Amino acid sequence: MANQELQDQEALNREAIEVHRRNRGKLQTRSKIPVRTPKDLSIAYTPGVAAVCLEIKADVNKVYELTGKGNTIVVVTDGSAVLGLGNIGAEAAMPVMEGKCILFKELAGVDAFPLCLRTQKSEEIINIVRNIAPGLGGINLEDIAAPRCFEIDEALQDIGIPVFHDDQHGTAIVVLAAMINAAKVLGKNLADLSVVLNGAGASGIACAKLMLGVGFEKKIDPLVKSVILCDSKGILHPDRTDLNPAKQEITKITNLERIQGGLAEAMKGRDIFIGLSVGECVTKEMVRSMAPDP
Amino acid sequence: MANQELQDQEALNREAIEVHRRNRGKLQTRSKIPVRTPKDLSIAYTPGVAAVCLEIKADVNKVYELTGKGNTIVVVTDGSAVLGLGNIGAEAAMPVMEGKCILFKELAGVDAFPLCLRTQKSEEIINIVRNIAPGLGGINLEDIAAPRCFEIDEALQDIGIPVFHDDQHGTAIVVLAAMINAAKVLGKNLADLSVVLNGAGASGIACAKLMLGVGFEKKIDPLVKSVILCDSKGILHPDRTDLNPAKQEITKITNLERIQGGLAEAMKGRDIFIGLSVGECVTKEMVRSMAPDP
Repeated sequence: MANQELQDQEALNREAIEVHRRNRGKLQTRSKIPVRTPKDLSIAYTPGVAAVCLEIKADVNKVYELTGKGNTIVVVTDGSAVLGLGNIGAEAAMPVMEGKCILFKELAGVDAFPLCLRTQKSEEIINIVRNIAPGLGGINLEDIAAPRCFEIDEALQDIGIPVFHDDQHGTAIVVLAAMINAAKVLGKNLADLSVVLNGAGASGIACAKLMLGVGFEKKIDPLVKSVILCDSKGILHPDRTDLNPAKQEITKITNLERIQGGLAEAMKGRDIFIGLSVGECVTKEMVRSMAPDP
Repeated sequence: MANQELQDQEALNREAIEVHRRNRGKLQTRSKIPVRTPKDLSIAYTPGVAAVCLEIKADVNKVYELTGKGNTIVVVTDGSAVLGLGNIGAEAAMPVMEGKCILFKELAGVDAFPLCLRTQKSEEIINIVRNIAPGLGGINLEDIAAPRCFEIDEALQDIGIPVFHDDQHGTAIVVLAAMINAAKVLGKNLADLSVVLNGAGASGIACAKLMLGVGFEKKIDPLVKSVILCDSKGILHPDRTDLNPAKQEITKITNLERIQGGLAEAMKGRDIFIGLSVGECVTKEMVRSMAPDP
């Protein structure tokens, strides 16, 4: 970074720390109804609230009507892959999770609360999320390292509320939206295009699955012609012996031409390149080797 | 209830249901800081927030300074003993837990969030609470049935933040406060007085422990002369074979005179009666049998 940029970044950092210190975090809870008179109390709490409980006991679906469940999510992390900072732990993850919660509320009106977990064991995380679901409308898994995040996300798809892993599905949705838009601008048909994804972590694998229509309840056709995934060692290929189970699994649906080599080989003749890894890995020659109007 | 009282109660119930339906519950989350400009975003979220995370990573105690941890609690229930309604389950417990959360905020300024758990297994509840602690300043266990609540509450006393079971400690604190006040009014010395507690559930046992100074890190002297506990079968006595482990345990410190019999026997010559069970179980004769100025 240039000197000026560094100074700007440092000034922003200081301001961020000062704002967080002054407010002791960024998130608060509030009552939607007044709590001032004994009458208010008897409606919000006892004895009036008992009637509300019994309505839900008689028909559990009324929980969506009579409580905040339908508009409330929890942002869950184990602090293992936070915002490019790596495995910084539950406490240090709090500022990011609070930040996510206020974005949910201020930009989308969704009530969100952070839970930063002490455990980084998949089985325990799955069990916790499964058991907190009754009062929630959805779960946002956040900054959980791959490949553990796949295991957790998959195991939780039966809990009755949407479970969304930001780093997988969030990125995949935005990337696909950009691709749909780019194809329109270029006058191309997405279904005819071949894609190279550089980066085979949580987001890369989720992008590949979304583009190939995998994971939908009703199987839909692939949205693109083909997908090739690369990691730091080159193209993902089923013969490679250095792949973790998630990467191994994804070779069943990607690189069906079974080409081998590095990123340069992967890009030859392809239409779309998506970078989900380190910067400055693509050369002019690689871009020239792609299909026309990449 | 008289006819008019019944009608009033029904009107209140209808209004409570209507207020809950109109607001879809009572609790919301909010940002403490503005989120309007790109600058706001870069302070609340990326890139500024990274500096805040790294401050906490370097010194984990800063989580109290830079996040909401210090002022945030979670109200946890398994829905097994809700507000005198019994085991109505996690979803039906939500209106009470939301109510508790807004009381915390509106009356004490504490940010509180409800978690209604699907499980009613002690081991799982302990594990969940233990693992969500890093971002929280305290835990309020709520409406968990005895004797499971004792097991859960005790197992969680080492998690580094206060764990409070409302039905135990909340009731015990209020009862003791009232006793201190009553002793002052009557010009008596609390340490000279004998107590009969009717009801040996969560609150009765917690009251007995608090009055006898049990559970304090530094052992303090009993606050009263003696305590006798009664349940629906009569005075708790170590020879009784129908006691659950929590009731059996409490006989080690209560009823040291080892008297047997029912509530009538327990009350003879005692100074203080506390009812934590059903109503209308005390007769005029029982009150007359107590010590002077009971």
